[in-house]
Amino acid sequence: MKALVVKPGSKGVYLKDIDLITENKIKVKTLYNGICGTDREIVNNKLPFVRPENGEYLILGHEALGQVIDAPENSKFKLGDFVAPMVRRPGNCMLCKIGRQDYCIDGNFAEAGIRGKDGFMREYFYEDENFLIPVEKEIGELGALIEPTKNVMKMVEVFQSLKNRIIWDCDDSTLNCKGAWIFGTGSEGVLSSLVFKSIGFNVTIVNRHPLPENVLKILDKNGLKFFDSSSKNWKEALEENPMDLAIDAAGSADIFIQVIDHINYNGIVILFGTSGTGSISDGSFITKIVDKNLSIAGVEDGSKKNYIDAAKFLFEYGSKYSINDIITSRIKPEETWIFNEKPKDEIKTIIDWNL
Amino acid sequence: MKALVVKPGSKGVYLKDIDLITENKIKVKTLYNGICGTDREIVNNKLPFVRPENGEYLILGHEALGQVIDAPENSKFKLGDFVAPMVRRPGNCMLCKIGRQDYCIDGNFAEAGIRGKDGFMREYFYEDENFLIPVEKEIGELGALIEPTKNVMKMVEVFQSLKNRIIWDCDDSTLNCKGAWIFGTGSEGVLSSLVFKSIGFNVTIVNRHPLPENVLKILDKNGLKFFDSSSKNWKEALEENPMDLAIDAAGSADIFIQVIDHINYNGIVILFGTSGTGSISDGSFITKIVDKNLSIAGVEDGSKKNYIDAAKFLFEYGSKYSINDIITSRIKPEETWIFNEKPKDEIKTIIDWNL
Amino acid sequence: MKALVVKPGSKGVYLKDIDLITENKIKVKTLYNGICGTDREIVNNKLPFVRPENGEYLILGHEALGQVIDAPENSKFKLGDFVAPMVRRPGNCMLCKIGRQDYCIDGNFAEAGIRGKDGFMREYFYEDENFLIPVEKEIGELGALIEPTKNVMKMVEVFQSLKNRIIWDCDDSTLNCKGAWIFGTGSEGVLSSLVFKSIGFNVTIVNRHPLPENVLKILDKNGLKFFDSSSKNWKEALEENPMDLAIDAAGSADIFIQVIDHINYNGIVILFGTSGTGSISDGSFITKIVDKNLSIAGVEDGSKKNYIDAAKFLFEYGSKYSINDIITSRIKPEETWIFNEKPKDEIKTIIDWNL
Amino acid sequence: MKALVVKPGSKGVYLKDIDLITENKIKVKTLYNGICGTDREIVNNKLPFVRPENGEYLILGHEALGQVIDAPENSKFKLGDFVAPMVRRPGNCMLCKIGRQDYCIDGNFAEAGIRGKDGFMREYFYEDENFLIPVEKEIGELGALIEPTKNVMKMVEVFQSLKNRIIWDCDDSTLNCKGAWIFGTGSEGVLSSLVFKSIGFNVTIVNRHPLPENVLKILDKNGLKFFDSSSKNWKEALEENPMDLAIDAAGSADIFIQVIDHINYNGIVILFGTSGTGSISDGSFITKIVDKNLSIAGVEDGSKKNYIDAAKFLFEYGSKYSINDIITSRIKPEETWIFNEKPKDEIKTIIDWNL
Repeated sequence: MKALVVKPGSKGVYLKDIDLITENKIKVKTLYNGICGTDREIVNNKLPFVRPENGEYLILGHEALGQVIDAPENSKFKLGDFVAPMVRRPGNCMLCKIGRQDYCIDGNFAEAGIRGKDGFMREYFYEDENFLIPVEKEIGELGALIEPTKNVMKMVEVFQSLKNRIIWDCDDSTLNCKGAWIFGTGSEGVLSSLVFKSIGFNVTIVNRHPLPENVLKILDKNGLKFFDSSSKNWKEALEENPMDLAIDAAGSADIFIQVIDHINYNGIVILFGTSGTGSISDGSFITKIVDKNLSIAGVEDGSKKNYIDAAKFLFEYGSKYSINDIITSRIKPEETWIFNEKPKDEIKTIIDWNL
Repeated sequence: MKALVVKPGSKGVYLKDIDLITENKIKVKTLYNGICGTDREIVNNKLPFVRPENGEYLILGHEALGQVIDAPENSKFKLGDFVAPMVRRPGNCMLCKIGRQDYCIDGNFAEAGIRGKDGFMREYFYEDENFLIPVEKEIGELGALIEPTKNVMKMVEVFQSLKNRIIWDCDDSTLNCKGAWIFGTGSEGVLSSLVFKSIGFNVTIVNRHPLPENVLKILDKNGLKFFDSSSKNWKEALEENPMDLAIDAAGSADIFIQVIDHINYNGIVILFGTSGTGSISDGSFITKIVDKNLSIAGVEDGSKKNYIDAAKFLFEYGSKYSINDIITSRIKPEETWIFNEKPKDEIKTIIDWNL
Repeated sequence: MKALVVKPGSKGVYLKDIDLITENKIKVKTLYNGICGTDREIVNNKLPFVRPENGEYLILGHEALGQVIDAPENSKFKLGDFVAPMVRRPGNCMLCKIGRQDYCIDGNFAEAGIRGKDGFMREYFYEDENFLIPVEKEIGELGALIEPTKNVMKMVEVFQSLKNRIIWDCDDSTLNCKGAWIFGTGSEGVLSSLVFKSIGFNVTIVNRHPLPENVLKILDKNGLKFFDSSSKNWKEALEENPMDLAIDAAGSADIFIQVIDHINYNGIVILFGTSGTGSISDGSFITKIVDKNLSIAGVEDGSKKNYIDAAKFLFEYGSKYSINDIITSRIKPEETWIFNEKPKDEIKTIIDWNL
Repeated sequence: MKALVVKPGSKGVYLKDIDLITENKIKVKTLYNGICGTDREIVNNKLPFVRPENGEYLILGHEALGQVIDAPENSKFKLGDFVAPMVRRPGNCMLCKIGRQDYCIDGNFAEAGIRGKDGFMREYFYEDENFLIPVEKEIGELGALIEPTKNVMKMVEVFQSLKNRIIWDCDDSTLNCKGAWIFGTGSEGVLSSLVFKSIGFNVTIVNRHPLPENVLKILDKNGLKFFDSSSKNWKEALEENPMDLAIDAAGSADIFIQVIDHINYNGIVILFGTSGTGSISDGSFITKIVDKNLSIAGVEDGSKKNYIDAAKFLFEYGSKYSINDIITSRIKPEETWIFNEKPKDEIKTIIDWNL
């Protein structure tokens, strides 16, 4: 079968013919893969922790939707079922043992398509049924978004936990008076803005430059505000929508400081971007974190529960929010240039194995 | 009566004779006041938000222990009771209305001895009984530590809330396997280290220079480890005691980065220092917050519940932990030089109104 | 306009012509009302706490969907919007002040159509916009189910809170291994079973007699198990689906004992039925509550947040779960016999004001 | 060495000479054992689940304080240390694996002195250091109360969790306006009343008959109210102290109904008594649980954390609350009549191995 592989330690990606060894597990035919920044970084040999499962090649791909084409007897799945595979696999720590490998405390986990386990950019794969998420067939190509959306679902879980620090809801028990600000307008930024809108927030999405038409269209359709932070009209934007929750999909120190400066008392900050850029010239940001009783959480990966919630969100809100508009290109597996070149106005590119 | 006053907007502190106007409240005779960095900053006109209650002078002092010398009928208190007054007084926001003015969301609160309300460095004061904490008489001069200790009790409350994000206790249900690192060796640092020891943590206290004898003695007596971070032997210190919880009493960006670098997966960081110093040259600290699923909280002030817990802690652990050793000087009200000059080896200086 | 009224203190219900006095609020045209057991009890003068808002008559009806036909300027709503009104209105207790009148601690609340406030079984009503829930138009007659479904959403909220007592999820982070048992097959029982299925439970619905065809059809369509408890084959039924969560929509002591006997260790029991029947011959049920570390919660009413979640559930799952099948009859306002006679195989009857 | 043994399946208790086989564990000399109702029920063959560890005899005793007299190298304990052993030992379920065998979900645990593991009523025992709680020597014979007090500490933990269901504290953030009612005046009832007083409750302790002098003296000394429920003056007693939290140490259905009838809205009920007596003639108690949004929890056993908190409570509050008054007799191991005859006015009897 065909598979997209990389050789950890060097640049490049190749569509290779490889053998699939039969296992007593669920056999899955890949339908779609999502492509994300991590894939491009792996292909460009920028992530030091990438390592193969066996031999010297690693099969790429951690975002996938597939269909069951063979299953052992007594399996939970049957032929034709749609499934999304989980990325991170548990090690032996206490958190891994209770199904929370997303909170692994010793780093001894594997991640499909990234470290120590072959990924899903290939025609077929065998998988343990416990790491497959059942998905409604009607979800179609939106199923390729389950993996990135599960991160957003973990953000919701973390938000729900952090807000228990104190009474945080509005005085009518809802979130109607609260604003969520999402920093970053890539696919995870847009998905985050839709998910937090769905739980009741007024949402502002932020970038430091004007947005392309296709992103603006999604925001308009769904009643999301956009703020171009290069305009520096913070006061006006905060009057339109207060910042009570901030979600940073970017990971730069500059944005972090903007958040700390502008967020309300008792604000909650969720960090999941990892660009690692920028710097902070002045330690007074700590004083602000203290004075405003802020709560800040890093959010990495997600649990099986978060995958299931992601699949539900995409299924339930797919048409209401026109989530398909997030998928901006569909390509064939052999179009490997995609890993080196980001299409203009890309929000999300997916590989369609039926093309 | 005599009172220590400042004139907001200019430097200096004066022992003045002022009139005490009778109110239908509890009359309290001041026994002790604690002196803290905030008092010294007020005297040196470094805090822009300081404002008088009436006229142009503000009576200084927010840390106090007093004794009831007069009380209206049907009061909860009787003559001779020991009491500690609360600093922050509620405004009208939802959090203030439920007794959580420490989480005030609009900034419209007053703080005795700091902003909009006269403080307790005076012979007598009248106080609403709802803002007086009942204190066991046996507490003696340790009662002057209730106010700073209530901040530590809020830290415990915030820690207990943040750790609900995920299963955080050791696999025997305790905190025996967990390390707390306290950054800062002033009175709040030392108090924090004792409080977190009392709830089960292995505690390391950190400063960037060797400690004076009197601080070392307190640490030794109570089984607290000390780490001189200028030695840079982090690896060794972390092997002795892992960093799962970090409490920063300093507020510098440099220490913040040390914490983010060295804390474990799922670590919890409590910030309450406000020095506002230092800088961060590199945005990769955000990547670490994300990858390690860290939770970070600013902690400001505390609630009445936190004051009560502080009084209990000081009463119960006073002799066990020799907490009296934290009080390094006792001075008279007229010794106003203390606001301009920190005694060598000071941990905590208190004013004793009976001297 | 026409309104269905009762005279508290005596039996009977009347379709009367009454005047609607203009108020500076949202004017709503009633589309549908749901009829529930409480309405029938009011009409039959069985509830001692029923009282009028003004005069001697009370307008009946607390389950409603309406459409905005007039709105003051600057209102959140515009002409044509669909809305569902809230039933319980806050008093002055601390919980009422933070929007949780469903947890009112002094009983000084009003309830539309029940106590101290006219209800919604009338052609039009004026309403404060803060007590109107915005509803998607596509929801259609399912909107009449928002009010009863908000109780189920509060059950979910209470369940989520109670399960924090200890780690409760399965060892893969989901609820896939957990069974919820719903006792009662009326509309709230069926709605509960669908809601708890949607959050991941395996659901068994229980009654002490065989079910009519139309209820069975809903269960079959949605993969819900049915257990006829008169068959007494508990062992078999519990092997098919373990009882980890039990929801009692009935309120009889006999069912309570069945739940306590059969539920698993660390089980959660939600009570919201109020039939008040049955008796318990033997105090050993308390020993079982202790030995199994059970958690039991009574759940009354719901908050605005719960209404919003109810509207979302009905909108999102309406067609997936064929929730329309729950509505078994649609009648005209003048068909007042419905309050004295329950149609055979009724799950839910609604009044359609356009018939 | 001497040991008190029973033969499960028949009545009687015997002081036997038995061999102690050396193990590579901590060797502990028993100082004190507490005697409780469970011990008397075992001796009278009333508990069907009692079973030996080996052979046909079981060494009795689950409440103990001991002193380390031998320890392997690298042990956490050293000669002379005081220790209290844990009763319940984990099986293999998920809760047992994370140190919460008190919430064991499959019943496959052992309990020293009760089921499947020899107890501590003997001169010496070997114990795994992980199941020994370190205790301050100054605790003296109060150490015999650690085991029953750990149950109370779990009650506190459960209370803290249940009250997160909604905002529950008073509007000044404390518990000052809240009343806790403890039903039962045996040792666990009295210990519960002291513990819940220590966390801020106004406490009423209840029994259905007048109390002996020695119990009244403890209540008086500590400011606990007593209510004789046979007097039926509930109204007056509830005016003196409202019932917001009820703790039932008895386990009878009659008391359960009294609690449900008299507790406030949003009340919390903790059950840990297991007498299993009484009956309920009327199902309307369920309606009250619903209408008042009550939360009810059974509480069984406790975790290592709860033991540690118990040891801390007894050490810190021992003299403040004169807890020694709870120990009403000290007997020798050979006085086996104690298991068949409860001394008049007994609160707690302990075996002193040095007598």
